[in-house]
Amino acid sequence: MKQTISILVENQAGVLNKITGLFSRRAFNIESLAVGVTDDPSISRITIIVDSGNSVVEQVEKQLNKLVDVIKVRTLEDDRMIGRELMIAKVSCTTKTRVDIMNLCQIMGAKIADVSPTTMTLELSDTTERLELFQSLLRPFSILEVARTGLIAVQKGSGKI
Amino acid sequence: MKQTISILVENQAGVLNKITGLFSRRAFNIESLAVGVTDDPSISRITIIVDSGNSVVEQVEKQLNKLVDVIKVRTLEDDRMIGRELMIAKVSCTTKTRVDIMNLCQIMGAKIADVSPTTMTLELSDTTERLELFQSLLRPFSILEVARTGLIAVQKGSGKI
Repeated sequence: MKQTISILVENQAGVLNKITGLFSRRAFNIESLAVGVTDDPSISRITIIVDSGNSVVEQVEKQLNKLVDVIKVRTLEDDRMIGRELMIAKVSCTTKTRVDIMNLCQIMGAKIADVSPTTMTLELSDTTERLELFQSLLRPFSILEVARTGLIAVQKGSGKI
Repeated sequence: MKQTISILVENQAGVLNKITGLFSRRAFNIESLAVGVTDDPSISRITIIVDSGNSVVEQVEKQLNKLVDVIKVRTLEDDRMIGRELMIAKVSCTTKTRVDIMNLCQIMGAKIADVSPTTMTLELSDTTERLELFQSLLRPFSILEVARTGLIAVQKGSGKI
C-alpha cells in the first residue's frame, strides 16, 4: 500500500539521514523522496511516498514525531491532495522526428528545455499518471535519459499542514 | 560551495539511507535531494545539491562509487547542465486579488492547480532562480504553504550520464 507522507523539518545536516534510517530499519522501500526549502529558509519540507506493504504507517508517523528536528508530520490522502511531479527527459531526434516530438509536447503541455542536432531535452510537471503517459509516448523515439523529482503534495482547498 | 551530484542507484530499500549517511558523517548539509525512478524501474536517479564548504566533494564521489547499490556518480557543472525544480505554492486570495495572481501566473508560466473561495494553489517548474523570483512576487498575497522538489538535472546537449 502506497502512502504519501509530508514532513516539516529543521533544515540541518543529518536530519534526512535520521528520517531515511527510520524507514530503512523497517525495510519500508521509499519509492520517492523530495526535499526542498519552504518559504522559511530554516524549514524544509520532505515528501515521501512509501510502500509499506501491509504494515501500518502510523507507527512510523509516531516515531517521526519523536525526532527532535521534526516539526510536523502528516499522511495525505490521495483524493484530498494536489500531487505533482517533475520530469526531465532527453530523447533522440532527427530533423524528421523533431516535429512529432514537438507535437507531443504541445498535447501534453511539456516545455522544450534544450535541443542539439541529435537530441531534445523535455520538461513536464504533472501528476505521476500523466508523466508515465508522456514517458510511454516518448519511448518510440528512444529515451536517452530520464530524471524525475518524486512527488510533492499539498492538501486540496484552503487547508494547511 | 554548492555542487550538484547525480547518482544512479539500484531501486532498493536502504540505499538512500546509506547515501545520506555518507554526507551526514562529513557534516555536509544536503540542500536539496530528489529521488525518482528512471526509464528502467529497477534504477533510480538521486540528485543532490550539497554545500561542501571548502571541502572537496571528490572524496565523497569516490566513496559513493564504492557502495554496492550505486551504479554511477557524476558531478554536474552549473554551466553545462539543464537544472529544473518544481514548486507548489498555496496563497491567500480574495475576489479582488485573484486576477492579480492570475496575471503573475501568466507572466511566469505557472499553472493554477487548485482554487478555493479564499486560496489558490499554483504550480511552477523552472530554474531555482525563477522559482525564487515567483515566490517573492507571491509573498505580498500571503503564502500559506510551499512545497518544492529540489533540483533535478541532466547534461546540456546530447551527452548522457
